[in-house]
Amino acid sequence: MIIDCAIYENGVRRDGKVELEHAYDVRHEPGRFVWIGLYEPTEQEFDTLRREFDLHPLAVEDARHGHQRPKIEEYGDVLFVVLHMIETGETELRVGEVDVFVGRNFILSVRTGVEKGFRDVRARAEREPELLRRGPGYVLYALMDAVVDRYFPILQTIEVDLERIEEEIFAATSPRANIEALYVLKQRLMAFRHAVGPLLESLGNITGARVPGVCGGMQEYFRDIADHLQRLNQTIESIRDTASTAISVNLSMITLQESENMKRLAAYAALIAVPTLIVGIYGMNFDYMPELRWHYGYALVWGLMAAIDGYIFYRLRKARWL
Amino acid sequence: MIIDCAIYENGVRRDGKVELEHAYDVRHEPGRFVWIGLYEPTEQEFDTLRREFDLHPLAVEDARHGHQRPKIEEYGDVLFVVLHMIETGETELRVGEVDVFVGRNFILSVRTGVEKGFRDVRARAEREPELLRRGPGYVLYALMDAVVDRYFPILQTIEVDLERIEEEIFAATSPRANIEALYVLKQRLMAFRHAVGPLLESLGNITGARVPGVCGGMQEYFRDIADHLQRLNQTIESIRDTASTAISVNLSMITLQESENMKRLAAYAALIAVPTLIVGIYGMNFDYMPELRWHYGYALVWGLMAAIDGYIFYRLRKARWL
Amino acid sequence: MIIDCAIYENGVRRDGKVELEHAYDVRHEPGRFVWIGLYEPTEQEFDTLRREFDLHPLAVEDARHGHQRPKIEEYGDVLFVVLHMIETGETELRVGEVDVFVGRNFILSVRTGVEKGFRDVRARAEREPELLRRGPGYVLYALMDAVVDRYFPILQTIEVDLERIEEEIFAATSPRANIEALYVLKQRLMAFRHAVGPLLESLGNITGARVPGVCGGMQEYFRDIADHLQRLNQTIESIRDTASTAISVNLSMITLQESENMKRLAAYAALIAVPTLIVGIYGMNFDYMPELRWHYGYALVWGLMAAIDGYIFYRLRKARWL
Amino acid sequence: MIIDCAIYENGVRRDGKVELEHAYDVRHEPGRFVWIGLYEPTEQEFDTLRREFDLHPLAVEDARHGHQRPKIEEYGDVLFVVLHMIETGETELRVGEVDVFVGRNFILSVRTGVEKGFRDVRARAEREPELLRRGPGYVLYALMDAVVDRYFPILQTIEVDLERIEEEIFAATSPRANIEALYVLKQRLMAFRHAVGPLLESLGNITGARVPGVCGGMQEYFRDIADHLQRLNQTIESIRDTASTAISVNLSMITLQESENMKRLAAYAALIAVPTLIVGIYGMNFDYMPELRWHYGYALVWGLMAAIDGYIFYRLRKARWL
Amino acid sequence: MIIDCAIYENGVRRDGKVELEHAYDVRHEPGRFVWIGLYEPTEQEFDTLRREFDLHPLAVEDARHGHQRPKIEEYGDVLFVVLHMIETGETELRVGEVDVFVGRNFILSVRTGVEKGFRDVRARAEREPELLRRGPGYVLYALMDAVVDRYFPILQTIEVDLERIEEEIFAATSPRANIEALYVLKQRLMAFRHAVGPLLESLGNITGARVPGVCGGMQEYFRDIADHLQRLNQTIESIRDTASTAISVNLSMITLQESENMKRLAAYAALIAVPTLIVGIYGMNFDYMPELRWHYGYALVWGLMAAIDGYIFYRLRKARWL
Repeated sequence: MIIDCAIYENGVRRDGKVELEHAYDVRHEPGRFVWIGLYEPTEQEFDTLRREFDLHPLAVEDARHGHQRPKIEEYGDVLFVVLHMIETGETELRVGEVDVFVGRNFILSVRTGVEKGFRDVRARAEREPELLRRGPGYVLYALMDAVVDRYFPILQTIEVDLERIEEEIFAATSPRANIEALYVLKQRLMAFRHAVGPLLESLGNITGARVPGVCGGMQEYFRDIADHLQRLNQTIESIRDTASTAISVNLSMITLQESENMKRLAAYAALIAVPTLIVGIYGMNFDYMPELRWHYGYALVWGLMAAIDGYIFYRLRKARWL
Repeated sequence: MIIDCAIYENGVRRDGKVELEHAYDVRHEPGRFVWIGLYEPTEQEFDTLRREFDLHPLAVEDARHGHQRPKIEEYGDVLFVVLHMIETGETELRVGEVDVFVGRNFILSVRTGVEKGFRDVRARAEREPELLRRGPGYVLYALMDAVVDRYFPILQTIEVDLERIEEEIFAATSPRANIEALYVLKQRLMAFRHAVGPLLESLGNITGARVPGVCGGMQEYFRDIADHLQRLNQTIESIRDTASTAISVNLSMITLQESENMKRLAAYAALIAVPTLIVGIYGMNFDYMPELRWHYGYALVWGLMAAIDGYIFYRLRKARWL
Repeated sequence: MIIDCAIYENGVRRDGKVELEHAYDVRHEPGRFVWIGLYEPTEQEFDTLRREFDLHPLAVEDARHGHQRPKIEEYGDVLFVVLHMIETGETELRVGEVDVFVGRNFILSVRTGVEKGFRDVRARAEREPELLRRGPGYVLYALMDAVVDRYFPILQTIEVDLERIEEEIFAATSPRANIEALYVLKQRLMAFRHAVGPLLESLGNITGARVPGVCGGMQEYFRDIADHLQRLNQTIESIRDTASTAISVNLSMITLQESENMKRLAAYAALIAVPTLIVGIYGMNFDYMPELRWHYGYALVWGLMAAIDGYIFYRLRKARWL
Repeated sequence: MIIDCAIYENGVRRDGKVELEHAYDVRHEPGRFVWIGLYEPTEQEFDTLRREFDLHPLAVEDARHGHQRPKIEEYGDVLFVVLHMIETGETELRVGEVDVFVGRNFILSVRTGVEKGFRDVRARAEREPELLRRGPGYVLYALMDAVVDRYFPILQTIEVDLERIEEEIFAATSPRANIEALYVLKQRLMAFRHAVGPLLESLGNITGARVPGVCGGMQEYFRDIADHLQRLNQTIESIRDTASTAISVNLSMITLQESENMKRLAAYAALIAVPTLIVGIYGMNFDYMPELRWHYGYALVWGLMAAIDGYIFYRLRKARWL
Repeated sequence: MIIDCAIYENGVRRDGKVELEHAYDVRHEPGRFVWIGLYEPTEQEFDTLRREFDLHPLAVEDARHGHQRPKIEEYGDVLFVVLHMIETGETELRVGEVDVFVGRNFILSVRTGVEKGFRDVRARAEREPELLRRGPGYVLYALMDAVVDRYFPILQTIEVDLERIEEEIFAATSPRANIEALYVLKQRLMAFRHAVGPLLESLGNITGARVPGVCGGMQEYFRDIADHLQRLNQTIESIRDTASTAISVNLSMITLQESENMKRLAAYAALIAVPTLIVGIYGMNFDYMPELRWHYGYALVWGLMAAIDGYIFYRLRKARWL
């Protein structure tokens, strides 16, 4: 599905929505470029684009199949960029993909699997014609910047989740739920690692010594994206590290809890076992057991048991077993 | 065993199956190349090939012995490529090997240890003569692409297995089976790591700055394979990481389960120990124990025991020990 | 808020506080430079600075938003440096930021989030005009040196904390508090890692082969800072490593403690269970039980129980269960 | 002790055993080289060799002291190579050393600490004069190849050991023996890591861009050794990884076993505690306890106990606690 | 404190002890150099040295403050080297520092914090004038070699300690002491890591492609030191790895011990609980309990209890619970 297709001349959008056929013609005129946004295109649309813009079959193949790693690759003059988009779904994260083809006079973005598009990016870009004049390279920057900036709030919810779990770990109320939550959190984090890591690596290709033509004079902009990715990366690594520690701390807390329960259990056992022995003694049937004949024998036994249990209780309380 | 042996002229297969002897002669004519597929060749076949195609003895030695790491090595003009092939056997993965010798006018593939061959690769290649015209370098690409693409579905079954184990870990029904399953899964994953990692490393040799002659003009194709390998690598690392976490989570679950069993055990012990003490008291033989004379003494003891146990039960239930 | 704004001529401060407007003019005269210190500037101040000193919008954007990773970036002739400042807050560390813009004739430092400023740095620098004569590059060094030197005492308090926790781990008195303390310590350490690591990496940009103009002839000074950062880094890694070991040692101590408690518990259980069995025996109601008739039967049972418990106690004490 | 000392002319051995003195003279004649094999030489022999072959004092010092890391170092024209040799001793691995000095016209190998020498290597080399003609560089290759190939079978026994331990871990019969076995296995593996890792690193010196004179034209051979070392390295890493997992799996199995024992213990306790309570009830001395008067009271109690225990048993069996 | 100060001419020491003032003059004469050894110098001595030998203020600052990481830095023509010295103190290791300034005609060594100096190094060097003739670069080598060689015996005591702890772990007698010992051992190891690691890194500066003037022609010597450091490094890593494994093995042993204790405990509990139930049965007060009337009833119960306990004992012994 074609979302939008427009021709830009010196950074200004030509009026009205352009038909694809005209877009193809126009792109050969100097000082102009076409920006086409697609959402889950059909096989047919893919074919047309490939033919008209002379895209490399391997790149088109990648875009068609999806599930690529983020990457920035040169196919002759054309840059092929794969980005992961991450959205919060109902229960877990939804990972989509944008595949961008950038040529001298055109930029095509192919979005799949996520709802939010790039209308706002286009609108903002059109409000800044002096930047848009730089051509498709700037549009690529704007798209990447948008995609990367959208990672931050989602990653932040993961951070907030982790802090909540931490508190619960030390409260030690629901160790089982904590383990599961940490496990799920680590899985969700994986989506970010797969989105951020490879992209950061690939960015070296367009910020390093030899820069592809379409990104010429834009290094500082792409370096800025690299910087954002590095911040994300650092946050991801921190969360990962903390989550691992949290898992092992949780295990310590479980063991500790067990240890304390055992102490309490032992304490109560002592409080019952000793009187049980005493009453056993006076349940014996010896002919000659003077205490049994005493008038206050029974009461004395009660007193004895109370005294012993009192003492045991006092000792255990002091040792913090109770 | 020779599976197939054909001569290609401008990308088109010459009619009929060619005898090995003719293949040797033809390979010196320009614009042509021989493609020979072998399956577990005999010592004699190895010798003939080595002599006729002037292969380096060390490379032939490697192919003969098998059990090599995946690699891409240059011996003069000839490229020697070792690939691991992975098939699902009955109980565990079956790891085979393809050794490929690529020269200017010939390509030999030697397969051992796995059932599935490259008939489909040859058939597809023959349907695309404009690509096959590029020569043995393209055939090498096609073979590598086929081998690498076959890793995906098998790796996916491992991923599915892991997800099933995860569910069982949190269900906590069969911790012992889970440990074993995770252990086996990690072992199976090792086969992939050994297949993918070294190959990815070696691919640098034919996609980097200095490319061997037979792969000239094919960099984008081999980069595509490198990209697939990197995706595999990423998946492998994710599974590995998750499996490690799963092992430690499983241990946490075992400890937790034990802790909960102990609490339940302690709870039941309390429900029995307290009445046991009470009945012990009224089993004492003191002459003067007024309760023993009461008509409803016995019934009262029953009531007392029920009340105490009821109270204990209520408290333990509230504390979630029961 | 503008903290201070002064013009330096051959390393000597011109009398009095300079108005911002004059500062802008003066900066184009050779042999002079402006040093402006700001604290959490307003949007308006940011705009003025950007316009007058011709700062790159992306750098200003970073400074405005804050929460950047430490970095040293070149925007044309201007160096943009981000540093983290760490102060001890009441309960946890307070992480602030200094953003420094260094041009040929000016240096601007923008501090946010921390209380302590750079008055002392400016005062010291003004006492050494022969060094200050080197220009904004030297001021940058002085600022970075001050920021980095302030890390040391705070990191040391973390080290001292760790040593205290270590002692408590082996004393095994409060395992629960230890886990929490170690967890918090690791979190605090993270702030240092984020402050030190990226900065050390970035420093390569101004101590390596190609040095930006404003830092010319200052390599030895910046190398000195790199050296300090490396020492910090080493300390951080040591603490991290030790804290991880401490967490696992703490778990071992918990398990060990549990094991010893269980042994003591078992020992006491034995001391009670055996007499309980004995008194049970003489509570049986058989018609013919000769011991029951003996005059000293009861006393003998007491003796028997004392003897058996004495023996058990002696054995358990020897086995160090008690 | 001099094992063998021979002069080779165009790859062919001169008849008879040569005296050391003649060897020294001959080595200056073109097209010839001396190959001397020594076993734990005396101080005097070391001195003679150093003087006659003009070896660097630091290299000789290393050879004399032994306990070096594997390495390949150039001292002027002379290559100094240290290799570890590993033999299976009675209870643990025996690690010896070969120090090889390779010059333009000579090769000296100094073996210490292991029994097996290089007679077979020399014999095989002498059977292939066309290779031996290449000079001392080829002999170096032959020696290294022999040393490295001898690692494989020993490493394989470690692999077999590990598999045996794995089975026992899951059989869970002897956890204590398993821990010890894994610990010893890891120690033995360390010997291999120390033998393989540094050598692989050093090999870069003679397979890379700048190759020392004595190894000229032999790169493919040394790359083959590097390849073998990489295979060893991979196997070592796999074993290491698996052994670590096995240690943690073993711990899980111990905990699991403990947990299951506790369940069984709790089950039996329940089967005894409940009847104990019941018999306690009918041991009470109340005047009015109707059941005591019933003729079948006693039998009924037996029945009751059997019924309750039967029910408990059934429930526990179903819950797999028994 | 000045330990020694001498002028060397063509590798030979000029007679007598030289006054510092003369040393300064002499150092400008060709073919001569001054070697000054200091121990914890005063501020005043530092100032004199800095002025006379024109040392860089940052380097002097480092030497004055101490607590530097080992490093080798060039300040113009002067090399500034920091080494850690390690001595065995009473309870823990004592880490000192040597700071060496090496110029064309002078070498100054500043030792702090350790007792053992370099008298023996100077004496040995003076006995080898042909080496000493090479100048301050050789003295630097001699000092570094001495410092590094002194690491070996101390590291060996750590290795011996580790072996002793290993034995105790498997003997399982004192798990608590083992944990502490392993923890302390890891801390001690840290001192070595901090001494060896950074120095090895820095050595690249004087053994690599561009060598500072004062070390000219000495690469093989410094490479030898690098080699020693690498051996130390390897040993350190091995100990570290083994100590980590030992900590986790110790935990396994504790858990295992606990598990076995629990089994024994359960076994004894069974031996007591069953007879307790039996005697409880015959303590019941039913009117009609035929066994109570039997003449040998009591004896039979004893027999029954003995038989049951005998059987339980036999079963548990067979299951190795006892």
